[in-house]
Amino acid sequence: MGMVGGGPGAFIGNVHRMAAALDGQIELVCGAFSSHATRSAEAGRQLFLPADRVYPDYETMIQTEKQLPVGQRMDFISIVTPNHLHFAPAKLALENGFDVVCDKPITFSTSEAVELVQLVNKTGRLFCLTHNYTGYPMVRQARAMVHSGVLGTVRKVVVEYPQGWLASRIEATGQKQAGWRTDPAQAGKAGCMGDIGTHAENLAEYITGLQIESVAADLTTFVEGRKLDDDGSVLLRFAGGAKGVLLASQISVGEENNLKIRVYGEKAGIEWNQTEPNTLLVKQADRPVEVYRTGGNGLSPEAMLATRLPAGHPEGYLEAFANLYKNFALACRKKAAGENPNIDFPTVEDGLRGMKFIDAVVASSFQNAAWVSV
Amino acid sequence: MGMVGGGPGAFIGNVHRMAAALDGQIELVCGAFSSHATRSAEAGRQLFLPADRVYPDYETMIQTEKQLPVGQRMDFISIVTPNHLHFAPAKLALENGFDVVCDKPITFSTSEAVELVQLVNKTGRLFCLTHNYTGYPMVRQARAMVHSGVLGTVRKVVVEYPQGWLASRIEATGQKQAGWRTDPAQAGKAGCMGDIGTHAENLAEYITGLQIESVAADLTTFVEGRKLDDDGSVLLRFAGGAKGVLLASQISVGEENNLKIRVYGEKAGIEWNQTEPNTLLVKQADRPVEVYRTGGNGLSPEAMLATRLPAGHPEGYLEAFANLYKNFALACRKKAAGENPNIDFPTVEDGLRGMKFIDAVVASSFQNAAWVSV
Amino acid sequence: MGMVGGGPGAFIGNVHRMAAALDGQIELVCGAFSSHATRSAEAGRQLFLPADRVYPDYETMIQTEKQLPVGQRMDFISIVTPNHLHFAPAKLALENGFDVVCDKPITFSTSEAVELVQLVNKTGRLFCLTHNYTGYPMVRQARAMVHSGVLGTVRKVVVEYPQGWLASRIEATGQKQAGWRTDPAQAGKAGCMGDIGTHAENLAEYITGLQIESVAADLTTFVEGRKLDDDGSVLLRFAGGAKGVLLASQISVGEENNLKIRVYGEKAGIEWNQTEPNTLLVKQADRPVEVYRTGGNGLSPEAMLATRLPAGHPEGYLEAFANLYKNFALACRKKAAGENPNIDFPTVEDGLRGMKFIDAVVASSFQNAAWVSV
Amino acid sequence: MGMVGGGPGAFIGNVHRMAAALDGQIELVCGAFSSHATRSAEAGRQLFLPADRVYPDYETMIQTEKQLPVGQRMDFISIVTPNHLHFAPAKLALENGFDVVCDKPITFSTSEAVELVQLVNKTGRLFCLTHNYTGYPMVRQARAMVHSGVLGTVRKVVVEYPQGWLASRIEATGQKQAGWRTDPAQAGKAGCMGDIGTHAENLAEYITGLQIESVAADLTTFVEGRKLDDDGSVLLRFAGGAKGVLLASQISVGEENNLKIRVYGEKAGIEWNQTEPNTLLVKQADRPVEVYRTGGNGLSPEAMLATRLPAGHPEGYLEAFANLYKNFALACRKKAAGENPNIDFPTVEDGLRGMKFIDAVVASSFQNAAWVSV
Repeated sequence: MGMVGGGPGAFIGNVHRMAAALDGQIELVCGAFSSHATRSAEAGRQLFLPADRVYPDYETMIQTEKQLPVGQRMDFISIVTPNHLHFAPAKLALENGFDVVCDKPITFSTSEAVELVQLVNKTGRLFCLTHNYTGYPMVRQARAMVHSGVLGTVRKVVVEYPQGWLASRIEATGQKQAGWRTDPAQAGKAGCMGDIGTHAENLAEYITGLQIESVAADLTTFVEGRKLDDDGSVLLRFAGGAKGVLLASQISVGEENNLKIRVYGEKAGIEWNQTEPNTLLVKQADRPVEVYRTGGNGLSPEAMLATRLPAGHPEGYLEAFANLYKNFALACRKKAAGENPNIDFPTVEDGLRGMKFIDAVVASSFQNAAWVSV
Repeated sequence: MGMVGGGPGAFIGNVHRMAAALDGQIELVCGAFSSHATRSAEAGRQLFLPADRVYPDYETMIQTEKQLPVGQRMDFISIVTPNHLHFAPAKLALENGFDVVCDKPITFSTSEAVELVQLVNKTGRLFCLTHNYTGYPMVRQARAMVHSGVLGTVRKVVVEYPQGWLASRIEATGQKQAGWRTDPAQAGKAGCMGDIGTHAENLAEYITGLQIESVAADLTTFVEGRKLDDDGSVLLRFAGGAKGVLLASQISVGEENNLKIRVYGEKAGIEWNQTEPNTLLVKQADRPVEVYRTGGNGLSPEAMLATRLPAGHPEGYLEAFANLYKNFALACRKKAAGENPNIDFPTVEDGLRGMKFIDAVVASSFQNAAWVSV
Repeated sequence: MGMVGGGPGAFIGNVHRMAAALDGQIELVCGAFSSHATRSAEAGRQLFLPADRVYPDYETMIQTEKQLPVGQRMDFISIVTPNHLHFAPAKLALENGFDVVCDKPITFSTSEAVELVQLVNKTGRLFCLTHNYTGYPMVRQARAMVHSGVLGTVRKVVVEYPQGWLASRIEATGQKQAGWRTDPAQAGKAGCMGDIGTHAENLAEYITGLQIESVAADLTTFVEGRKLDDDGSVLLRFAGGAKGVLLASQISVGEENNLKIRVYGEKAGIEWNQTEPNTLLVKQADRPVEVYRTGGNGLSPEAMLATRLPAGHPEGYLEAFANLYKNFALACRKKAAGENPNIDFPTVEDGLRGMKFIDAVVASSFQNAAWVSV
Repeated sequence: MGMVGGGPGAFIGNVHRMAAALDGQIELVCGAFSSHATRSAEAGRQLFLPADRVYPDYETMIQTEKQLPVGQRMDFISIVTPNHLHFAPAKLALENGFDVVCDKPITFSTSEAVELVQLVNKTGRLFCLTHNYTGYPMVRQARAMVHSGVLGTVRKVVVEYPQGWLASRIEATGQKQAGWRTDPAQAGKAGCMGDIGTHAENLAEYITGLQIESVAADLTTFVEGRKLDDDGSVLLRFAGGAKGVLLASQISVGEENNLKIRVYGEKAGIEWNQTEPNTLLVKQADRPVEVYRTGGNGLSPEAMLATRLPAGHPEGYLEAFANLYKNFALACRKKAAGENPNIDFPTVEDGLRGMKFIDAVVASSFQNAAWVSV
């Protein structure tokens, strides 16, 4: 694996490295960690990389690595830069024969996402978008239970993602994470909705297997001086008649990272909360609520495959994130072996869905929460 | 206290009786428990009432009791009939000099509610609408903290009220509670929104002290053959700029009665859940979340006044309900003593707010979730 | 009902009154509320009792009421005084033909308890000891599940009752509740163990149907200057081979009233916590943990009989307490009708068990936690 | 790092590998993964190790690696075998100049532990015992708060570790994990107490900074045919006067791995539960309970150093485990640089404490729960 971005002060770059390392299946062999060559070099030293595999920029990395023999050169790149810097390295990697792991949202604009979809289809490369919350064992259990009919026809979805860390204007203090996320030039047309709303959208579609058909969104910028939305409430209509609500907020003071989803069908409901991710509540109409647990009784093969430890040994954010890398690595190996690489991880198509969702909620909000198709 | 309704098979009538009895301040002295005279008489016997204080209908009760001397006759009536039977007894009682406690929603139609407001103003009688959830000590604590500025300016309100008991068409089986709630002739123009959505609306306004200015509502009837909404999602805009979401559902399988509210201000957020009603989470931006508890440390006088037991002795639904009766009885006594009867309980004005809310969400939903003023 | 004790400043007297009133089956008709005649009279006035039914002492009350015709006189007495004042009024009431409700622990000394057992047997009167925690619907559910074999043979019981309110010497400040509980002359030979340890003991025996055979106890007085234990840990051995631990503490700072029990059998375990009393966790070996809820799915008749409200309408401490009064009132009526009055409520025998438990833990602690038979 | 043990079917070996890999500070370079040479070789292949660094036994590994130049050879060994196979490789490693990480309990017998302590002292090597639960950020926060005096003098400790996986005789089915843990020849003189009781003991001493002085233990073997204890309850007395209870059980059906500790001082109490490890409850006498959270507000430097992610991104068992490896690696580096390697991780002395604790509880239980000094 070669990494693009993730230099000093980055949050998500280190997450990707830990997630990739966890299972001993992936080795970080090179990187272009910063647009400043010296910072990139420094990051490489701290990561114990040989100096000649630390590059000043992603173009050099891709071109140089391509010259190395297979087995020695990086197998894929992992892109962990701010949103506006996803597209170019992804494109170049795909065009030069490398598979790609990319943080979300997939690109700065929908047109770029469309182009990436086409490029993936054309090149036949693998592309993994790190919608990491789908990596939790209990999220996979939820999906499996919806698909196997435990809930019956899905009627209602409530997905919410409140955070509080942007309740005041910390971007004005130089906080790097806040800085690019609230800057339209780096984040894109949406703030909160792009950053975490897309996670909620992806989670809802992943678990239910249903597509959001239209949205009525009321986005708000509560913090004065901020240019992008920092809060939004969205009415959802799904293909097939289910309805729902999606809430995303970064001004909900005191909330950490409380992604939560509830899905109600004709026969049962389920509830999952990222803050206590190893628990899935299953609420059938005619019996006591059941507490499904990572590593516990009654789990589907999909959940068990995503589990490393016995029940009661909490698996967290990094383990879920690592499940995407694990599946991606397995898919790469399968493809290399000429087998079908179809293994569960979010794809370039999911990335495009996310961009269309952003477009739709922003458009709806501009039209005073009128319904807009996704 | 004289009761109208609450005969055999009723749920809420018995709740009112237990709530009124709890504190030893109110005595049930008469009633017209059913529109069937023999059922009313039978109910009276079971309640240990003398036969001559059990009436065949509310008209007889009001006219007869009026003839009795003060101190012996009932001091007020409590109306616990289905929605369409609130107005007439309330009106007659007010016109004949009796104070009134009435279950919610206040009336079948908004015009009736307007008339009751006028009548209360004209007669100077006391009127308590049993929006019982405002009786919980931790709800009063929440209101006190918002009002004292702990949260700063309120930005976001998320109030939800999911139930699951109407997920299938149990009204077709003869279930009495489901029957009248799903019948437009008895419930009014809204189903779920009238039955529990108004509780959510009232709670949000009670705690925040803010009025909902406009709504964009998507109501649904998920259960085939049902005539009224059994689920709804509503975007909220409050006077002053706060925003929010109100969810009410009776098809959320496995949910019991999970009224929950979160309010976020500039400086702090609060969270309360009726299912664990003795806990209030307070989330200030710069310190650990605090767990306020009924009877515990740090409480406001308003919360303490609503508390009967030391911390750790759970107070529940009936105790909260009884707080309305307790306050109402105290107000009656104050008024009788020529004092200002202004004590915290929901009034006829709150009832009218609820009716306007119902009108607005129904109108919005007919217009495909367009914004409608309340 | 006539009450002994429960005057100004009392906690438990008011609890008994609210519990007795809740279901409309019991009326407070007289009382001797204080050993000070004027205080007793004042309490009676506040309770709306006629002056001639408010007595200066329990002897006068019992003798006077006895002269009144049945139907007018009190049917039973309720004793809510400190421990050392339970025996005499209970004895006098039994001897004069009145049934008795008595707070716990039953008496000041075991010999008194033995005498009461004999007196109850001799007189044939009904005697209810208010081990109120057995009144919770989910405690009854727990007992029913143990008895029906869901757990298989019981192996392990962990029962704990931590409180924190006596972590400092508040009895020195004049706090009345703390005063008598820490005074050997009023509380008896045990402090914490008598006050709340007996609740834990009773709960464990009630749910499991097993008797504690022997104990090894380490009692401590942590607060300097205090004469009775304020904390204790007890190893338990039950008849039949089950083992366990009982913890009771009043110096566990920050704990409210967290009575909690876990019972593990060969096939399943259960867990119940008084702080969230409407939930019972059932943990079977081969399936997800199940969440049984008051008013919810899958309940036994015993639990349903103890329930007043639909699921999700929290029932609390007073409702549980009221279940003892309700059952007692029903038993009184059955007996009056010549029927078998055998209905679930704690009896004089449970009171004697509690006294023997106190004796055993105190004796064991004096012997450095040697095993002592109960 | 070179690993001893952890071949096919092992649980803890893989845990150690993931924990060591997580932070990119430690590389697995060699191993003797099984006492069967072919199984060891197979394990090495799956771990992408070169064949010449996979050894048939630990003696060969240590002797061979020793010949390699520093920088290329392993820096330390990690011992993940069953208990009876800890001592020999640890001894050999220490004697040959390698630092050691070793799973717990440290050895099969106390005399071996004494010898290891002496050897560590003599050789000056670093020795880390993986009492992994001390690696959780909130455990470090708890320790820091006790040490800084938030609780005042500690009075009471309740530590419990219930599991349910050995509630039936699964060792008879060939389950490998159950097999060696219930075999006195591999596990030592204690079953449950050695396997998980020592974790509880270590956690209690780590957080409080107090040593257990004496124990009164009641150990039981509930499952027929089993030779070692599968459940135990222990009264604790700490140096300085604090008291406590330690519960460990592997027959508590339905419990996963619920290590939990509560510590009460004069001024405050704390509560931590491994099942939800990112939360620490702090209960001060005069204010609402506070919820400290990994990555959240108000944390000590010790907690922050052990944290990788922002609040709300759950860190779990592996992250806590990795904190030991991270600190150990840092200590190795400090020592190599001639700096003081004193960094927080459990040491050989903690291992000896654990063995003495096992001795004491087993001895006490044989004497019918008499007090035995640790």
